[in-house]
Amino acid sequence: MLDQVHSFPVQVYYEDTDFTGVVYHANYLKYFERAREHLLGVEALVKLYEEQGVGFVVYKAELRFKEGMRFGDRLEVRTRVTVPSEYRAVFDQSIWRDGQGPKVEGRVELCCVNREGRLVPLPDLRKPRHEGSVG
Amino acid sequence: MLDQVHSFPVQVYYEDTDFTGVVYHANYLKYFERAREHLLGVEALVKLYEEQGVGFVVYKAELRFKEGMRFGDRLEVRTRVTVPSEYRAVFDQSIWRDGQGPKVEGRVELCCVNREGRLVPLPDLRKPRHEGSVG
Amino acid sequence: MLDQVHSFPVQVYYEDTDFTGVVYHANYLKYFERAREHLLGVEALVKLYEEQGVGFVVYKAELRFKEGMRFGDRLEVRTRVTVPSEYRAVFDQSIWRDGQGPKVEGRVELCCVNREGRLVPLPDLRKPRHEGSVG
Amino acid sequence: MLDQVHSFPVQVYYEDTDFTGVVYHANYLKYFERAREHLLGVEALVKLYEEQGVGFVVYKAELRFKEGMRFGDRLEVRTRVTVPSEYRAVFDQSIWRDGQGPKVEGRVELCCVNREGRLVPLPDLRKPRHEGSVG
Repeated sequence: MLDQVHSFPVQVYYEDTDFTGVVYHANYLKYFERAREHLLGVEALVKLYEEQGVGFVVYKAELRFKEGMRFGDRLEVRTRVTVPSEYRAVFDQSIWRDGQGPKVEGRVELCCVNREGRLVPLPDLRKPRHEGSVG
Repeated sequence: MLDQVHSFPVQVYYEDTDFTGVVYHANYLKYFERAREHLLGVEALVKLYEEQGVGFVVYKAELRFKEGMRFGDRLEVRTRVTVPSEYRAVFDQSIWRDGQGPKVEGRVELCCVNREGRLVPLPDLRKPRHEGSVG
Repeated sequence: MLDQVHSFPVQVYYEDTDFTGVVYHANYLKYFERAREHLLGVEALVKLYEEQGVGFVVYKAELRFKEGMRFGDRLEVRTRVTVPSEYRAVFDQSIWRDGQGPKVEGRVELCCVNREGRLVPLPDLRKPRHEGSVG
Repeated sequence: MLDQVHSFPVQVYYEDTDFTGVVYHANYLKYFERAREHLLGVEALVKLYEEQGVGFVVYKAELRFKEGMRFGDRLEVRTRVTVPSEYRAVFDQSIWRDGQGPKVEGRVELCCVNREGRLVPLPDLRKPRHEGSVG
């Protein structure tokens, strides 16, 4: 998983835009998160939370906005993940349209916490993975 | 509480609008809910949920949109609540601007459920109440 | 288009839920709208707005909530549209999970307005249509 | 305006949280923007956009999340603005609760663009200002 660029499609709906005609800036963080959930596996995330009480938490995010996306745009979220330690996952993510970009770039850093809010090691992201399993 | 009209102010921000220039239709449900939370008492709702595991749940909503509100508008949410049975609270809510309205009208019906999702009687809404206490 | 049930998939993400563990009630209106946009054709809606300044506007919505959907759920939005007059389109929409439902039911009524906010006739929804064209 | 810390209150509602029990990370960007709008003056922003077609645009944002805020929390957004050039405004913003914090810290950088999306100088933020006027 770590050597690949993960690609995830996003459609811009009414709900995503604001009165200036472009996507409201905070919503790109939503797009990035949807992509991360699919990269990690939605079912695996559900299982991790329900069985172990462990969830991913964003502790840092950086965003650069280069061009505003518009209603009806079909976007691609490109994500590359690196794991600098057993406690931190760093996602470099960007927004592309018609193969052109990046229109928005971001780095989002996550850790895992348990039910008590304590830091725990990440599940193993380096093994081959299918939708529905982490590690 | 039951014989009064409760008034709650809402400001329209960037986040609330869409590219057509007006407030995105689903967001009026958010405005209505903020008003209901203040009418019921935010602290009381927190306490009810944390101590008894009981929360209010919307089971029915009806909305009529007459005029779109815009960025920068200072709105008033007017709410009147009736309690037709010990299990149901009916909130008649509307959006006003500069004392003129209703611009949007709604009826939202709620019940209370416990941690297992079972229906439980409402807390007593008929007694005098201060912010921070239900019943 | 008018005799068919349109089916649209929706995934429940973090962003859709609230602290009670289920999808925040207003967000089902977002799911319904995404489905309507695909039924009508996203590109056609963009073209209609950019070339003629005409857009669809919700003037009435009714919702019944039967069961709360959860993080990770893969939902289906089922939509049937009727056109009682040349000015009104009525969408009967519902949420299904694993082929079971409806979990949420709604009726959303729309009209079309031009740049001045005047009511205009709907584009013809009765002709065969492909994604990218209305009528 | 430039030498002061601007304080803005935010209440955490159902709509702001996700199923893990805390505020969804992207929503702090909404809180920060509401505070910036009040600091700059909502009416002035409306006037600037309607009369000159000029609006503020976020081109960079950095966020650090230290503790998750919860339903019912009454927060304070503290904002300090600096203007390193006539084209850039830098907002250092943070979230406080019960006078304790920062729970979330951010730096959000904005510029102004006109209707054609061209960069234009900022309105003068250094003069005394009242709600309802920029510069």
